[in-house]
Amino acid sequence: MPDFPHSVHFDVRDYECDLQGIVNNANYQHYIEHARHLYLRELGIDFAALSARGANLVVIRIEVDYLSTLRSGDQFVVRTRLERASRVRFVFVQEIDRSDGKPVARAKVFGATMDANGRPTRPPAEVEAVMPPSASAV
Amino acid sequence: MPDFPHSVHFDVRDYECDLQGIVNNANYQHYIEHARHLYLRELGIDFAALSARGANLVVIRIEVDYLSTLRSGDQFVVRTRLERASRVRFVFVQEIDRSDGKPVARAKVFGATMDANGRPTRPPAEVEAVMPPSASAV
Amino acid sequence: MPDFPHSVHFDVRDYECDLQGIVNNANYQHYIEHARHLYLRELGIDFAALSARGANLVVIRIEVDYLSTLRSGDQFVVRTRLERASRVRFVFVQEIDRSDGKPVARAKVFGATMDANGRPTRPPAEVEAVMPPSASAV
Amino acid sequence: MPDFPHSVHFDVRDYECDLQGIVNNANYQHYIEHARHLYLRELGIDFAALSARGANLVVIRIEVDYLSTLRSGDQFVVRTRLERASRVRFVFVQEIDRSDGKPVARAKVFGATMDANGRPTRPPAEVEAVMPPSASAV
Repeated sequence: MPDFPHSVHFDVRDYECDLQGIVNNANYQHYIEHARHLYLRELGIDFAALSARGANLVVIRIEVDYLSTLRSGDQFVVRTRLERASRVRFVFVQEIDRSDGKPVARAKVFGATMDANGRPTRPPAEVEAVMPPSASAV
Repeated sequence: MPDFPHSVHFDVRDYECDLQGIVNNANYQHYIEHARHLYLRELGIDFAALSARGANLVVIRIEVDYLSTLRSGDQFVVRTRLERASRVRFVFVQEIDRSDGKPVARAKVFGATMDANGRPTRPPAEVEAVMPPSASAV
Repeated sequence: MPDFPHSVHFDVRDYECDLQGIVNNANYQHYIEHARHLYLRELGIDFAALSARGANLVVIRIEVDYLSTLRSGDQFVVRTRLERASRVRFVFVQEIDRSDGKPVARAKVFGATMDANGRPTRPPAEVEAVMPPSASAV
Repeated sequence: MPDFPHSVHFDVRDYECDLQGIVNNANYQHYIEHARHLYLRELGIDFAALSARGANLVVIRIEVDYLSTLRSGDQFVVRTRLERASRVRFVFVQEIDRSDGKPVARAKVFGATMDANGRPTRPPAEVEAVMPPSASAV
């Protein structure tokens, strides 16, 4: 079972909670996006620099299972790993767990690289380099 | 092919665009959530009132395919319909198209009703009433 | 008393409400920013195009008085006018009222133009053109 | 000169940056709100619990001077102190500095306590307790 090479801790911020008193779903996408960017940066891949070079990493599909809710005062961790999904697609497998271990969400975020004209291209070399070669069989 | 009984028009707001110059993915969840709540309210289902009664409609799974990007100045429409997914689950099928017809995103948002203790219950009568009886065969 | 040449109507979106059940304060800044950009665009000033040209309109000071709260289901209007504040500064005077007329917020948003290196410059000609000449006495 | 008894460190998250490549102004309000709530919680004042008790701490006026911009990858600190502004009003004085010391923003956030009917009341005892008695002369 593959591991998660990246994890980052967060505190719920009260403004992220909606009138149900729970973190609004859209914020989970914010959390996992931030975790992906931190992971990419740790790998030497600068999101803003790629964008300036005309290579935009874009999300083409997202699947999220919401298992439990986060509330004001909660702390949680987001774990991330990157896998190859096809020649031009990659997938981030991500987990959100509350700090006491309670599972909160499971996500798969499928990405592709778009050039400045919005056409899909092969991932930048920096991204290719971090995807496990055997992952093509996943 | 089933129709969409609800649609609502939006303008992209510049603060919704990120440093790639495109609407940030999490905002699509905001758009489709707002469309769902408008649809529910049109059906006589008040999201805030349900919440006050201890019946929270929560999203348990979301699937979104991102087909093209929205940018500053774009206008778009979100279409929504509600289907039964199981005895306790329902699904909102939602589409985002740019106003010129270009498909932007396709989403399935699976929901359930949680009581004040966070346990799943049957949907409130107001929600049951609007799900097509034959939809179990969908 | 000067008038407001621009107004735009909004619906509260439930995700904008926080766990107090009221619209989170930061969203007022979103509302009035969107109103400013719509007003500028109506005047032929494209925010994204200016940014691409290296002229960033930035907010240098904001003052907001919160008079009453907005809640789920509320509709409201944002009114905007632009005044000169100094040779290089301008100010947007903005009002938020609930659709039944109840005053919600009063804002002054002071702006300046920054070049690509982050240095203040005179406003672009398009912006200069819409500021009343007599406003220098304000 | 009074000190700041509370400070908290943040990373810019890319989704907080807008198409100008800088953190959107509304997010500064998010940052300083989160810092205030952390400070209040540290003082034993639970924002969500107060809200559940019908005592909503609300912002009645905000003043923010934006001195420089935050960008993708920046780290920063928010410092907070609480002062009495009048019998029923209090003010949070807050500073945002980039981690290298560059001043980013200075804010004054005036607050009051509203009961469940939206009427101003004296601050809860927990809040009164942390405001310096001599501050009435401020």
